[in-house]
Amino acid sequence: MPATPPLSLDDMDRQSLFHPVTSISDHITSGPVVYTRGDGVRLTDQHGREVIDMGAGLWCVNVGYGRAGLADVAASAMRELSFQHLFGSAASEPAIRLADRLLNLFRREACAPQMARVFFGTSGSDANDTAFKLVRYYNNLLGRPRKKKIISRLGAYHGVSCASGSLTGISAYHKGFDLPLPDVVHVSCPHYYRHGLPGESEAAFAARMVAELRATIEREGPDTIAAFIAEPVMGTGGVVPPPAGYFQGVQKLLAEHDILFIVDEVITGFGRTGSWFGSGKYALEPDIVSLAKGLTSAYFPLSASIVSERVWRVLEATSRTTGAFMHGFTYSGHPVGCAVALANLDIIAGEDLVSRSEKMGRYLLARLRESIGDNPFVGDIRGTGLMVGIEFVADRARRQDFPAEGAAHRLVAKRAQERGVLTRALPFLPVTSFSPPLTVTEAEIDEAVERYAGALGDVLPQLRALAA
Amino acid sequence: MPATPPLSLDDMDRQSLFHPVTSISDHITSGPVVYTRGDGVRLTDQHGREVIDMGAGLWCVNVGYGRAGLADVAASAMRELSFQHLFGSAASEPAIRLADRLLNLFRREACAPQMARVFFGTSGSDANDTAFKLVRYYNNLLGRPRKKKIISRLGAYHGVSCASGSLTGISAYHKGFDLPLPDVVHVSCPHYYRHGLPGESEAAFAARMVAELRATIEREGPDTIAAFIAEPVMGTGGVVPPPAGYFQGVQKLLAEHDILFIVDEVITGFGRTGSWFGSGKYALEPDIVSLAKGLTSAYFPLSASIVSERVWRVLEATSRTTGAFMHGFTYSGHPVGCAVALANLDIIAGEDLVSRSEKMGRYLLARLRESIGDNPFVGDIRGTGLMVGIEFVADRARRQDFPAEGAAHRLVAKRAQERGVLTRALPFLPVTSFSPPLTVTEAEIDEAVERYAGALGDVLPQLRALAA
Repeated sequence: MPATPPLSLDDMDRQSLFHPVTSISDHITSGPVVYTRGDGVRLTDQHGREVIDMGAGLWCVNVGYGRAGLADVAASAMRELSFQHLFGSAASEPAIRLADRLLNLFRREACAPQMARVFFGTSGSDANDTAFKLVRYYNNLLGRPRKKKIISRLGAYHGVSCASGSLTGISAYHKGFDLPLPDVVHVSCPHYYRHGLPGESEAAFAARMVAELRATIEREGPDTIAAFIAEPVMGTGGVVPPPAGYFQGVQKLLAEHDILFIVDEVITGFGRTGSWFGSGKYALEPDIVSLAKGLTSAYFPLSASIVSERVWRVLEATSRTTGAFMHGFTYSGHPVGCAVALANLDIIAGEDLVSRSEKMGRYLLARLRESIGDNPFVGDIRGTGLMVGIEFVADRARRQDFPAEGAAHRLVAKRAQERGVLTRALPFLPVTSFSPPLTVTEAEIDEAVERYAGALGDVLPQLRALAA
Repeated sequence: MPATPPLSLDDMDRQSLFHPVTSISDHITSGPVVYTRGDGVRLTDQHGREVIDMGAGLWCVNVGYGRAGLADVAASAMRELSFQHLFGSAASEPAIRLADRLLNLFRREACAPQMARVFFGTSGSDANDTAFKLVRYYNNLLGRPRKKKIISRLGAYHGVSCASGSLTGISAYHKGFDLPLPDVVHVSCPHYYRHGLPGESEAAFAARMVAELRATIEREGPDTIAAFIAEPVMGTGGVVPPPAGYFQGVQKLLAEHDILFIVDEVITGFGRTGSWFGSGKYALEPDIVSLAKGLTSAYFPLSASIVSERVWRVLEATSRTTGAFMHGFTYSGHPVGCAVALANLDIIAGEDLVSRSEKMGRYLLARLRESIGDNPFVGDIRGTGLMVGIEFVADRARRQDFPAEGAAHRLVAKRAQERGVLTRALPFLPVTSFSPPLTVTEAEIDEAVERYAGALGDVLPQLRALAA
């Protein structure tokens, strides 16, 4: 019998791997792009082609790829104690030290002395799922069984588990999965460029958004609203920094109606916006903070939920009668992940990557505006720190979308990838995001912008045809 | 100003760390037990005390602690490619190779040629959350929007996210969190020792359980039932192997009513039961399989969902019109985790740990029966492979529980820990589980059983008082 020839990686992938957030039919046609090496801001694929990863994976590789020091820390932690859970008061030194460090870092950098304890998981989705459960638990303990609804925003991205996916406000993530769950209410997306009315100032727009939130709370009944969840800067929903005055107005409402504030810093945490945390940048006062991604720069799956004194006090005060807090993951506070996170924080602090993000972010914005700001299909270039987005339009003056929504920016991103730069064409709006490692240099930004501008030039004829 | 003395690890923990599945008030009183080293089946705490971990963490450290080879693989994979997501057809070699290997391993060892693709996550909870979403997605694609309910069993443990926690059938995990979600139905726990009627044979008991399932499906309406989920051997719910004939009867019903079978192998996978998979051992024919824990022996957070051709075909056939499959985690298929899993599978296969589990499991059962089988408070000692449970009773003849449920077996476990052996006093029933690394030796079992028996002897007076 003739031996079966070994499968190529491509065929093996098509025959075995169920890709997340991928079109199955496209995948069968085109196959995978297999990356084999990462170094700094660059990835190399199996055919030796190098690309600049202006996405930092999925907004997560904050310190860049290929940090041998983090690999050494992981290996040494793994040799020492390859696993330890935190159930039933068990603990490990890295988990304790990371909780302490995170708490102090967040208190200091976000001016949030009210934060009290750190709970660990492995993904942003599970952190927001934990928040979803915590606000219910808290209100049940307080004897307010009706105060359960969570208000989120259209365009928000908070994960894909059933609960966190319900908080997500992007219909593509709901369709076919019967989401959102009941008790989740979505208000408008505070996206000024897109939803500001003709002649409306940013402040007036923000006030309108806050008024809508107020009306929503009143309509639903304040005694039914448990929490409000927001990303300081919307990520997947279009790279949308908050309009000026928005969060002040929101927080006033929340305080008025005893509504908890869940701040989702999964993307914005650890320097992405040019500050350590979006909460600090925008003077937010969270009750629960979700962290992941930059916490380990994606070297190890780790998430964290920081809870405030206000929430913790209730849990602690009732603990003797409620018994154990029956929530937690086997890998909550994995000692290797916590050791990697500690070393990753050393790098971010030691190399001052937060200021660097702010500086390089300004440079990236300037370079993009300079090179493609006049393109007739580029409606807006915006961002803060190394979290930048380009919004495409068919008609700049009227801010009008391309007819087949999404196709245009995907076309550019696809061509850019062929020219050697990875960006992320977002699923919700015709926006492409740039979120490179915080270590990116001016020269690398120049190179990436040049490639991207070239790609945009290449597909101009197609864009014109689409816009017509 | 005098310098603040540095915090001890204990105080740091109490002031910062929110422990999963822990009593906050007990924790404040007693503080953490901080482990600093793991080697084989042994853990060492910060005070140099050594314990035999007969729990393998949380049923997960299948190859034992301190495998330097796995640390080397992790470090080398991390240096090479510290992160790569699988979104939009992107891929990495370890993720592709692991998908291929898992699929072939499961097909062969579980006699399940129907399995088609592998989806990755980071925890058992997210794998079951993915299954929850998948069965809805599948039935929506098939135009059966009413066929959505999932039947689980009382005593089942499937995780703690809102969806997977709803599938869990243990009320302690629901209380205060408003779980289960709608559309989850729980049937009786197929625990013969506890729920068998006087004089009822195991086969008759199994038939009664199947009849109840049939009645439930009929009551709810077969066209509303999407799936049935089960652990091949119940873990957290009491270490309950299925009564003979049970799964045959169940599967007949599922086939009759076009109901998908989700098999949760998070605990049972990778040798735990003395077979590679519980599915193979009990001739199950799953449509979706959830895997985690032993997949990496907890060296790295990784989970997998294997989906069958029947499910995959529908997703693939409709892909062109539905667009991208909008579910997936940043860390789905983390290249470092997949590399660690591949090396972990090499160890399990190379050291023949599956047969070893079967053999050592029989030895552990025999040693426990021999040394404490006659204890008046030990009702049942059962298990398969290295998944063993002791059920405590206040009265053997009448199989009667201690009045304050749970206190008795917790007392023994606590004393055993002091004597140097970790076991797990389960939260649902007065059962303590033993699930050591599959590498455990006869001498280590002897030592552990001797310590445990000693602990049981130590607390006999308290047990007598409790039982009175």
